Amino acid sequence: MSQKRHEKLIKLDLLEEHALHLLEKRGVSIEDIAEIVLELQQPYIPEITLEECCRNVRHVLSKREVQYGVITAIEIDIATEKGSFSPILTEVLMHDEGLYGVDEILALSITNIYGSIGLTNFGYVDKVKMGIVAEMDEEKPERCNTFIDDIIAALAAAAASRIAHAQPARQDVDNH
Amino acid sequence: MSQKRHEKLIKLDLLEEHALHLLEKRGVSIEDIAEIVLELQQPYIPEITLEECCRNVRHVLSKREVQYGVITAIEIDIATEKGSFSPILTEVLMHDEGLYGVDEILALSITNIYGSIGLTNFGYVDKVKMGIVAEMDEEKPERCNTFIDDIIAALAAAAASRIAHAQPARQDVDNH
Amino acid sequence: MSQKRHEKLIKLDLLEEHALHLLEKRGVSIEDIAEIVLELQQPYIPEITLEECCRNVRHVLSKREVQYGVITAIEIDIATEKGSFSPILTEVLMHDEGLYGVDEILALSITNIYGSIGLTNFGYVDKVKMGIVAEMDEEKPERCNTFIDDIIAALAAAAASRIAHAQPARQDVDNH
Amino acid sequence: MSQKRHEKLIKLDLLEEHALHLLEKRGVSIEDIAEIVLELQQPYIPEITLEECCRNVRHVLSKREVQYGVITAIEIDIATEKGSFSPILTEVLMHDEGLYGVDEILALSITNIYGSIGLTNFGYVDKVKMGIVAEMDEEKPERCNTFIDDIIAALAAAAASRIAHAQPARQDVDNH
Repeated sequence: MSQKRHEKLIKLDLLEEHALHLLEKRGVSIEDIAEIVLELQQPYIPEITLEECCRNVRHVLSKREVQYGVITAIEIDIATEKGSFSPILTEVLMHDEGLYGVDEILALSITNIYGSIGLTNFGYVDKVKMGIVAEMDEEKPERCNTFIDDIIAALAAAAASRIAHAQPARQDVDNH
Repeated sequence: MSQKRHEKLIKLDLLEEHALHLLEKRGVSIEDIAEIVLELQQPYIPEITLEECCRNVRHVLSKREVQYGVITAIEIDIATEKGSFSPILTEVLMHDEGLYGVDEILALSITNIYGSIGLTNFGYVDKVKMGIVAEMDEEKPERCNTFIDDIIAALAAAAASRIAHAQPARQDVDNH
Repeated sequence: MSQKRHEKLIKLDLLEEHALHLLEKRGVSIEDIAEIVLELQQPYIPEITLEECCRNVRHVLSKREVQYGVITAIEIDIATEKGSFSPILTEVLMHDEGLYGVDEILALSITNIYGSIGLTNFGYVDKVKMGIVAEMDEEKPERCNTFIDDIIAALAAAAASRIAHAQPARQDVDNH
Repeated sequence: MSQKRHEKLIKLDLLEEHALHLLEKRGVSIEDIAEIVLELQQPYIPEITLEECCRNVRHVLSKREVQYGVITAIEIDIATEKGSFSPILTEVLMHDEGLYGVDEILALSITNIYGSIGLTNFGYVDKVKMGIVAEMDEEKPERCNTFIDDIIAALAAAAASRIAHAQPARQDVDNH
């Protein structure tokens, strides 16, 4: 293995580690996301466990495209709190302005990876504010959670899609 | 106005008329879709009327991109019932196979036109099967409604986005 | 393995086989698509071979979401030729009307699976009509190739993205 | 007009003004973008003028969804230069890492507004680096242009789609 390649592999691990670190720093655990996945998939796969959901969330988070989405989203929220943006953008982001859709489009880059069936679950989780998404929404005024709540919904929707795709026989029995 | 241009304008009217005709033929009225819009927007705009929602659905349906989406989607459902596709695709479409996502992606082409805020509403309407969407889902076995239910959800989500975008002052009062 | 699961596995093989059969029936080989991939990736990975590109195209085609996209797209083209749709939609599809965008949105469901970096390659291949895409465009008047040319561009873009994602060290050396 | 509504209208003007100001600050004029549009549309509409292209770019920039996209994208580039993000994200953004796709997905929120036909033009402009996009790419090492080049490509593609949609008769004559 060349030196160059070696450095790159380390960098990849760093991306995953950094994404997990940022989620934790903002108060979101793998289990929090897995609980939404469990709620989404239990109607189709009654015997599904939280452990299985956690494993699938972790697998979603091992994809580089997903890591880039998570890192960018959370760092925008943090930079907003620190006042790194213009007053206009800061106001839009601090108040999660209703017509601002960049957070939703960024989340789409995560949902899409497991196919378009994730779209429905993403919209649903985001609208009814399942689990930890609701807590994010209730945060204190000095916190900016504009991007992270869509990211959580996207991660949960992606993990649910991954379970559905991986278990065709079970899905087949339950859905038809 | 040249003869060529004249013919084209007629053709545009035909597209809209055909899209409306196909919706009606499949048992979906403008009012059915407007009722979903009303339910979506009432929490933000309590004084909104069904008439206003109808007007917005009609406006969404005046866009050519939307007309193409509606026509293609419903004609695929109809062709499926007529046996125009291979046995494999026919089986997938007649049973709205859980992992088939082409219907959702096609609906996205309608939702996107009014910005990404429509995504959340689309996913929600599709998942909880609001209004006429639920009726579509209960249809008889010889009917194929795989594409039309996503199209209805997309039309309702797009009209709701249009109302939200058009009424910034009201939205501002209600959302913050 | 239960009988049910066994049947499902057979069905999955059938989907892949049917997608490959449809591509071949329309005059498109794995090699045709791989040649576009080769042209796209050679500037970044000079030592890349056609064989490696073929292997990646086949891997893209092993994904169920992709198989559904390919099958739906080509069967719409075929049904159009057979006159299964209304005169209005038939005219739009037989002439690949410039403002019709359903073919592009359907192709997006394939491109997205390997992340949004595929978007750029998809647009480029579709616009400059690389390789077999150009041949599709020159077909005879009784042929409908509205959907298949976007599908080929999407398959090539997805395979190119897969190669880029799988080979970070090489990409790193060549891109920076 | 209520005081509340009045304030909102001012705020809307501020968003447009801020988006235009940021483009100018980064060295991008309406004309720069219009020149790409002209090159894209001239094969279909030989008599098209730069003035008409400018008018369409300005119209695209009058949409709030577009303004949010432009502002967010350019402010991320600026914040990256100022060192507002973590070392990991800063490195990815300063080098426009080849597999980072958030910039492309954000641009998609602009392109989509005028329908999916914009996708092809977006990918093409981004890949061949037309006009000002190429200049952005050659910038000095202390500059971060990761997001703005995709935004320019998206604005040009959206304006080209707008022209195509608005001029069906002309498009009809030239494309078929």
